[in-house]
Amino acid sequence: MSSKPSIPKGTRDFSTSDMLKREYIFETIKQVFRLYGYQPIETPALENLTTLLGKYGDEGDKLLFRILNSGDYLSSVNDEELAGRDTGKLSSKICEKGLRYDLTVPFARFVVQHRDELTFPFKRYQIQPVWRADRPQKGRYREFFQCDVDVIGSDSLLNEVELIQIIDDVFRRLRVNIKIKLNNRKILAGIAEYAGMPEKLTDITVALDKYEKAGWESVKAEMIVKGITDNVIAEFGAIVRVIDKDNSQKIEFLNSILIDSQIGTQGLQELKKLLDLLQKAEIKSEVIFDLTLARGLNYYTGAIIEVKSADVSIGSICGGGRYDNLAGVFGMEGVSGVGVSFGADRIYDVLDSLNLFEKTGFSSTTVLVLNFGDAETDYALRILAALRCMEVNAELYPDQVKLKKQMSYADAKKIPFIIIAGADEIKSDSMNIKNMSTGLQVNLPLDELRSFVNENIKQRQPSG
Amino acid sequence: MSSKPSIPKGTRDFSTSDMLKREYIFETIKQVFRLYGYQPIETPALENLTTLLGKYGDEGDKLLFRILNSGDYLSSVNDEELAGRDTGKLSSKICEKGLRYDLTVPFARFVVQHRDELTFPFKRYQIQPVWRADRPQKGRYREFFQCDVDVIGSDSLLNEVELIQIIDDVFRRLRVNIKIKLNNRKILAGIAEYAGMPEKLTDITVALDKYEKAGWESVKAEMIVKGITDNVIAEFGAIVRVIDKDNSQKIEFLNSILIDSQIGTQGLQELKKLLDLLQKAEIKSEVIFDLTLARGLNYYTGAIIEVKSADVSIGSICGGGRYDNLAGVFGMEGVSGVGVSFGADRIYDVLDSLNLFEKTGFSSTTVLVLNFGDAETDYALRILAALRCMEVNAELYPDQVKLKKQMSYADAKKIPFIIIAGADEIKSDSMNIKNMSTGLQVNLPLDELRSFVNENIKQRQPSG
Repeated sequence: MSSKPSIPKGTRDFSTSDMLKREYIFETIKQVFRLYGYQPIETPALENLTTLLGKYGDEGDKLLFRILNSGDYLSSVNDEELAGRDTGKLSSKICEKGLRYDLTVPFARFVVQHRDELTFPFKRYQIQPVWRADRPQKGRYREFFQCDVDVIGSDSLLNEVELIQIIDDVFRRLRVNIKIKLNNRKILAGIAEYAGMPEKLTDITVALDKYEKAGWESVKAEMIVKGITDNVIAEFGAIVRVIDKDNSQKIEFLNSILIDSQIGTQGLQELKKLLDLLQKAEIKSEVIFDLTLARGLNYYTGAIIEVKSADVSIGSICGGGRYDNLAGVFGMEGVSGVGVSFGADRIYDVLDSLNLFEKTGFSSTTVLVLNFGDAETDYALRILAALRCMEVNAELYPDQVKLKKQMSYADAKKIPFIIIAGADEIKSDSMNIKNMSTGLQVNLPLDELRSFVNENIKQRQPSG
Repeated sequence: MSSKPSIPKGTRDFSTSDMLKREYIFETIKQVFRLYGYQPIETPALENLTTLLGKYGDEGDKLLFRILNSGDYLSSVNDEELAGRDTGKLSSKICEKGLRYDLTVPFARFVVQHRDELTFPFKRYQIQPVWRADRPQKGRYREFFQCDVDVIGSDSLLNEVELIQIIDDVFRRLRVNIKIKLNNRKILAGIAEYAGMPEKLTDITVALDKYEKAGWESVKAEMIVKGITDNVIAEFGAIVRVIDKDNSQKIEFLNSILIDSQIGTQGLQELKKLLDLLQKAEIKSEVIFDLTLARGLNYYTGAIIEVKSADVSIGSICGGGRYDNLAGVFGMEGVSGVGVSFGADRIYDVLDSLNLFEKTGFSSTTVLVLNFGDAETDYALRILAALRCMEVNAELYPDQVKLKKQMSYADAKKIPFIIIAGADEIKSDSMNIKNMSTGLQVNLPLDELRSFVNENIKQRQPSG
């Protein structure tokens, strides 16, 4: 094989610098999840197709990666079926397993399967890759990571508060300014009731969802297509006029129109209480009640949450909501859950475009000891042992090559310090330490290495 | 769906307690890898089958999980081929991608694909799951993690030293006593030459490999089957007699018999130099030159390394070696590499059976604030904010339920401290803090929380 090898479309290799940046994001998120009492779980990449199929709609089913059965995978397919070439039917006979499509359905499966071992309310986080046979395009991958945090088994609004605190805390630590958008599916249902078309809830919401990007005329056009009557459209004209107002004005307006809708009133009360609690919890980010926010409406039953970068235009970087019956599909009824998912790839792009990775100064090696040859190796090994004993990431250049080549290795790996310990230094029980960014070089007695490390090197050492 | 959902055979869910234990292992390993200047990379789970096929032998090819192509996967299969039911041929037409089988081949692919962006010697580590369609059995999974550390682009023995230092350091940190076994493929080749049957190298080694488990008689029987001549077997009888001697006696003996074999002499010199350097590097673990150690002989070309627990009988928990032409299969010739792979699952089992997880005392939440109702929530939120500001993992029980239920939640989650802040405590600007392991409860003014945390709680907080 002489042509350069490659990887499948929509997948990525992560280089060391990618990895260190991604780990910084994942570690920050994880640390906050733990700070709020969430616990990690992991589920296998492979799930039975019976677990996955039918959970993401017809479109989702098509996007599942299926694993060909091992051995004689055609054994249960008869000649007629084979000749029929019905790929849909055939694939269900030749594939039993698939790759997980998200972390929510495996989580629901996990909760039902392990219900007897879990303590409810069960607060879990999960950071793992998912796979979708989507058409790859800029920013859309076939293999990508999700960072999910959910609590299941409690319908208290304090969970929503906590998740929004987590969002606030994560992005504050990452130094990303955000806007948190909130809505409540019950308010949307109330509006549909108010409009006299509760059965059109989905259509109305899909239409309203267009407001931010395309404006009222597009919303109107979409409503007409969906058979929403003129007088209802006029009512929505009034609702839309409050969309850009502040939260209290929107609530006041909705108070008046949702007064006769039980579900709408309940949704509005939940939203008010949530906003009130968020104020008490001293959320730093801007929180916007956004009537047009829908996000997979068929799934959520209460709060809907979405996060956008205030400075970079890139779509949502985190989102989620409450679902009252997530585990119902696996036979465990009436367990309410609420959760959000952080989009690691988009967060990476935001940090990158705002240059927020810079200050972290990633290098995995802090000190390179130059290789002067066999005679000097014993001495080098002693220095290395001392450095590692102080938890300083250090390495010896393994080959006896020109010092220039060794120096350019240090440059390429962005190693901040190099140690030169040749025959002269060994004779005087010392070493020369060069700071690669300032160019300064000092001669240091071996027994002063510890204090030098504490004063000059420790702060350049990557943590974790 | 009413029957309990399940996961595919050979896969696992990891509960929180599993996860925390596994993270302890992975974090320890990662920390040591970084301490020695190795850098993380990740490759996709999905690889093109052209990358994977033919790299693991015929048996390995059968164990690859293949991904069914999306869309009309039969479009390039004609009726005749379909009716032929040749599953091998068909699968290569309906599947282009597969799941990675190990981390070594993807690493070789990565190095060749990104050769222009890498700095050599390239020192990388990689901790990711791999998949094998093996028959599941106790301790053997279809989805499991590998932790690989390799350096490519340097043939210096200092790399072998460094890897063995890493092994020594990792298991010292995990408090596992180990034996490190070493061999060198060149010595095995030398022995085969000495025996006058260099073409029987593989057969001879497979036979010698049986010595530890089954003794000399089994080795002899295997050699007879493989057509090794009687006088050669007699020679090996002499070699086997030194197997249980100490390293220097073995070397002395081999010195005499390998004197005419160039490759054997070279192997012995490498081994002597390595043992010498390891002594200078003050390796704490026992290092044994094991003539019978083979490990995937067709793959390694120099040092062979294997690690066993000194206290638990479980097979090798880490192993690897040098391969002189790993990337050759992808068209990049003559780049020497050496690496080892840590077996996370077996290491987990060793730590578990030696009770070495105990002292880490895993709990992800350090403090639970009890929920007394809406009126007390504001106060609870203040306490929580103060705790989290000190990086103490804390949570508020979300629901207003009986205190007994909240307490048993703390018990089940092994939360070490609970805070009681009801109407009385709020009136006196204080809280009651109960230590769940001692049962001691103290009343603490709110403004003394910080010093209490520093003195009593911080050391119970999980790090990381």
